[in-house]
Amino acid sequence: MLDAPGTPHKINAQPMPAKKTSVKKAPATASSSSPIQRILETLHRELKSNSSGEVATYIPELGKADPNWFGICLVTADGRIYQTGDCDQPFTIQSISKPFIYGAALEDKGKDKVLQKVWMEPSGEAFNAISLRPGSGKPENPMINAGAITSTSLVEGSTTPQKFRRILKTLSDHAGRKLDLDKEVYQSESSTGHRNRGIGYMLRNFDILEEEPKPSLEAYFMQCAVSVTCRDLGIMAATLANGGVNPLTGVTAVARDHVENILSVMGSCGMYDAAGEWIYNVGMPAKSGVAGGILAVLPGQFGIGVFSPRLDACGNSVRGTEVCREISRRFALHMFNVPRLSASVVRRVGGLSHTRSSRLRSAREMEALRQSGDSIRVVELQGDLNFGSAELAVRQFTDAAPHVREILLDFSHVTAMDASAAAILAMAFATWVDAGRRVSICRCEGFSHFPEAIRQEMPRHWQSVVFHPDMARALEAAENALLADMKLRRHSSQAVKLGDCELLAGVDAKGLATLRRILKPVEFSDGDIIMRAGDPPGGMFFILRGKASAWILTESAHERRVATFSPGMNFGEMALLDHSPRSAEVRADGPIEALEFGLDAFHGLEKEDPGLQIILLRNLSRILAKRLREANLEVGILLS
Amino acid sequence: MLDAPGTPHKINAQPMPAKKTSVKKAPATASSSSPIQRILETLHRELKSNSSGEVATYIPELGKADPNWFGICLVTADGRIYQTGDCDQPFTIQSISKPFIYGAALEDKGKDKVLQKVWMEPSGEAFNAISLRPGSGKPENPMINAGAITSTSLVEGSTTPQKFRRILKTLSDHAGRKLDLDKEVYQSESSTGHRNRGIGYMLRNFDILEEEPKPSLEAYFMQCAVSVTCRDLGIMAATLANGGVNPLTGVTAVARDHVENILSVMGSCGMYDAAGEWIYNVGMPAKSGVAGGILAVLPGQFGIGVFSPRLDACGNSVRGTEVCREISRRFALHMFNVPRLSASVVRRVGGLSHTRSSRLRSAREMEALRQSGDSIRVVELQGDLNFGSAELAVRQFTDAAPHVREILLDFSHVTAMDASAAAILAMAFATWVDAGRRVSICRCEGFSHFPEAIRQEMPRHWQSVVFHPDMARALEAAENALLADMKLRRHSSQAVKLGDCELLAGVDAKGLATLRRILKPVEFSDGDIIMRAGDPPGGMFFILRGKASAWILTESAHERRVATFSPGMNFGEMALLDHSPRSAEVRADGPIEALEFGLDAFHGLEKEDPGLQIILLRNLSRILAKRLREANLEVGILLS
Repeated sequence: MLDAPGTPHKINAQPMPAKKTSVKKAPATASSSSPIQRILETLHRELKSNSSGEVATYIPELGKADPNWFGICLVTADGRIYQTGDCDQPFTIQSISKPFIYGAALEDKGKDKVLQKVWMEPSGEAFNAISLRPGSGKPENPMINAGAITSTSLVEGSTTPQKFRRILKTLSDHAGRKLDLDKEVYQSESSTGHRNRGIGYMLRNFDILEEEPKPSLEAYFMQCAVSVTCRDLGIMAATLANGGVNPLTGVTAVARDHVENILSVMGSCGMYDAAGEWIYNVGMPAKSGVAGGILAVLPGQFGIGVFSPRLDACGNSVRGTEVCREISRRFALHMFNVPRLSASVVRRVGGLSHTRSSRLRSAREMEALRQSGDSIRVVELQGDLNFGSAELAVRQFTDAAPHVREILLDFSHVTAMDASAAAILAMAFATWVDAGRRVSICRCEGFSHFPEAIRQEMPRHWQSVVFHPDMARALEAAENALLADMKLRRHSSQAVKLGDCELLAGVDAKGLATLRRILKPVEFSDGDIIMRAGDPPGGMFFILRGKASAWILTESAHERRVATFSPGMNFGEMALLDHSPRSAEVRADGPIEALEFGLDAFHGLEKEDPGLQIILLRNLSRILAKRLREANLEVGILLS
Repeated sequence: MLDAPGTPHKINAQPMPAKKTSVKKAPATASSSSPIQRILETLHRELKSNSSGEVATYIPELGKADPNWFGICLVTADGRIYQTGDCDQPFTIQSISKPFIYGAALEDKGKDKVLQKVWMEPSGEAFNAISLRPGSGKPENPMINAGAITSTSLVEGSTTPQKFRRILKTLSDHAGRKLDLDKEVYQSESSTGHRNRGIGYMLRNFDILEEEPKPSLEAYFMQCAVSVTCRDLGIMAATLANGGVNPLTGVTAVARDHVENILSVMGSCGMYDAAGEWIYNVGMPAKSGVAGGILAVLPGQFGIGVFSPRLDACGNSVRGTEVCREISRRFALHMFNVPRLSASVVRRVGGLSHTRSSRLRSAREMEALRQSGDSIRVVELQGDLNFGSAELAVRQFTDAAPHVREILLDFSHVTAMDASAAAILAMAFATWVDAGRRVSICRCEGFSHFPEAIRQEMPRHWQSVVFHPDMARALEAAENALLADMKLRRHSSQAVKLGDCELLAGVDAKGLATLRRILKPVEFSDGDIIMRAGDPPGGMFFILRGKASAWILTESAHERRVATFSPGMNFGEMALLDHSPRSAEVRADGPIEALEFGLDAFHGLEKEDPGLQIILLRNLSRILAKRLREANLEVGILLS
């Protein structure tokens, strides 16, 4: 926070899309007074009575499930868990493993290789259909068995144990705990897996599997027999909602780039031959398994796990489907039901004639800023910046009148900025700077990918975009640039006479002579601390030459500049009035010549020349009242 | 803005999800300095050289198209148009009409009836496949010809002209201009439409069409031959992105409820047998037509129209597919690529010991607020509230410590709130109020559906949620409630003595006697305007009994209360100092007894008793400096 005004922040290439907040890490499991928890409990109660559908029996072990088991678990993208019912009952993951192993194949072999082996079209057929594409023999998509076996063949390892170790790692990373195999179900899968073996050899025939199918087939049977709970499914779904990072452990289970692909195949092919109906009625990418699990993802928001073993004719859990449909319906969560949220990204637009720095200016400068302040456009952005909302923001550049020389963008209220928004803003800056106009940016330290985007877009001129840590300095720099344009800026190295001081307006020659006698000349060097917050009371200072700034510590223990003092101005007067400790730190910005009005001298004046004392106090009250009025206006603007 | 503190705002049931902003209506077409415009131009230049694919010739008229035509048009959800290339070249809409006519069928017959006639599963087959579901004979989805002919049969009207009038109206409403039929293409469609006639009679056979097929078939041929431009497609897509409201005309082309269904069938079945590939690589709901048009929608953000007649083997425009894929890839716009944006919804949480109203309090009250202020939790929310971010906000309730009695939610920085967020917050309020705790809400007047959601959730107690128009009043009410709990609140109807006035601290009995002689007793009734902004200078007032408030007009011409004055406080002192006009309006809040310190009396005192004058001025400076320090702190907090 202590960079000189105008110094660009260090550019940091680490991507970090959203600002950190003051929200503390939530305890993992929610109390029952939460509305979300109550919604889940209500749904559980309402749907428990639905006993339609049949438990899968195509392998004997699955038939042993209690048809009444019913668990619902919703996990937010930042890791808060809401759960009700049988959320800790183990069951086998079955086909819900398919999207995760597809993700592992993408990580291990890369997207190009994977797409050569398995396509991404919904087949319109049942999960166990062979559905190979004419000509290539490529499975239609990774959610049918043929495609899933292909994914398994693509994960790292050439033996069954090697492949299964990789599979168990990716599933465990998503779940945030070490998962394990249900050996009995695996034996049952393996001993009845004739159809899948047939598919495997068919894939080998078309050279989709490049090796002997057996290691992949056995690893596939094992992958389907990994034991999970409903809570695990919720957390795995939340990991996808959170861009591949498990929100409870912080572990990256799959690279963000692949999450979009995983969700795409879930979205178009995840629910067997009811994929279109699912998108229509539920509108979240999802995957079901024949043991009764369903996993659904609302990207960026949360994941859902549901477990109830009775299945419908398509092989999807009856109650699980209902839970997802009801959550989507009651809260209008369909992924295509997106309100136009971005319209309010521009919080406020104004000229410098409305928004002012804390630097106190001469009357001539004030008048100049009032007259020409609108050649600087101050734009406060707010909310989340994505492609659509950034487009609204860049209209501030493209629609600016010809007399606008500088745009100052305030990011204080921006809550997130994605890569596309950063790129579009950077492109607008490049055009603007090329036209000889200025752009400066305030409070965007939370978006470290943004300077990098600017540097990429304008490699030669990126330094002409100036970053400021607070609006006070940003506005002051903008004002200074404007006054310099107008050749109006008086440099603070020019000295003033005592009689020019604001506080001494109306004091006659005799009064000035009295003051010259009792004031003490003092000098400070650049960076000298003239007073510290908490220091015992002392005198007041009149600046004759040079500049000083007052700083306070904010709640968050950052330093913030609250005022800048130029020649002719005074500071430190509070102590004279009420003998209170110093409330701010004042530091010299360069060399200073000043006059100190000590405590004793000030109080002595009350006896010696009460008329002069009254003029001083009246001027002081007037100055304070004027600053108070300005501060109140600023609060009003900030709150409006 | 002039309701008494604590009065709930009038509840308004009209839904309005996003706050209005100060952004002016954009001019419709963009300048070339816009980054979006430059991106489109770059894509156009890069892809122009791609001349693979063939112009459709299945009806002779289509074969007449110039294969080099190429237009790109992007229209934002608020109606800004970016376009390049052949955007005004007419061509026929063909299959791109299907989603819109499906929407018209939903409007005319209702969702239940439509779902009885046409399903929503991707067929995995080509556009002209018959694809009827086994048993029912229902077309698999409304994007294949069989389903589209069924949609046409469901729109209002029993003759071809009646149906076509309805069709032309819905297409024109989406495009924002009156569209027309290309008669030659229609004749060509009709004279070669044997396969579609075959499909029509097959549908009649299964009773999917309940009448003689001919009127629907002819209307369907006409619907495919409606003439549009690439610009029309962009605007039609933007209308869907904007929830069914044409952003240029403001006309509701289709009800918001149906937009989700239209986009769902586009998402799962829109790109013929490349629907899965499209979701995987482009990730936006889209529809193509054999004349070379493609329309794609990024819900809430924008719509794209592309036109280039050369088609790939699936019947989709080659360059159109590339344009959509590149826009999606370069800006990471895939609908499943959603960063977790909601984490920063809680901007700040604090107790009353940190955030204070503008009401000036006695030392005893100040101390009480400092001690117990944290039993009131002030929560500033920001950004867009949806299901996921509202869940974070309600944790403030569920995680609150037992000593927290009141939560004050500040919506000043909330940019939008959807229905699910309103419902979840309302549920949290209901639980909170049932537990005997208080909740109040500030600055949520932009979200008129919110009070209605609260009323629905807590029909008996909705009035216990109090709405405040500004933080000053909200904080004051919260402080008053807390002081009342602590039996510490002195009512402003109790009078103080002159010597108790803040400004007269340290004045001795003789000084008070002097003042009693020169001050003039005055009385005001509730609502009296004591001074107006701009009035010529007058005296200062000491309040002995009652309460007054100072109001200023904000930039947006709203009144804002800047201070509340209680017994023992003074106002109007500025005029005594610099003879300036009044800067604010001061009104009596109930009956007032006060003493007026006139201009002449004040200046006379300088001669009569300079010592007393110095005490007054020194007290005044101290009070102003204290208020200034508080205002600076507030600005700091607001900017932090």
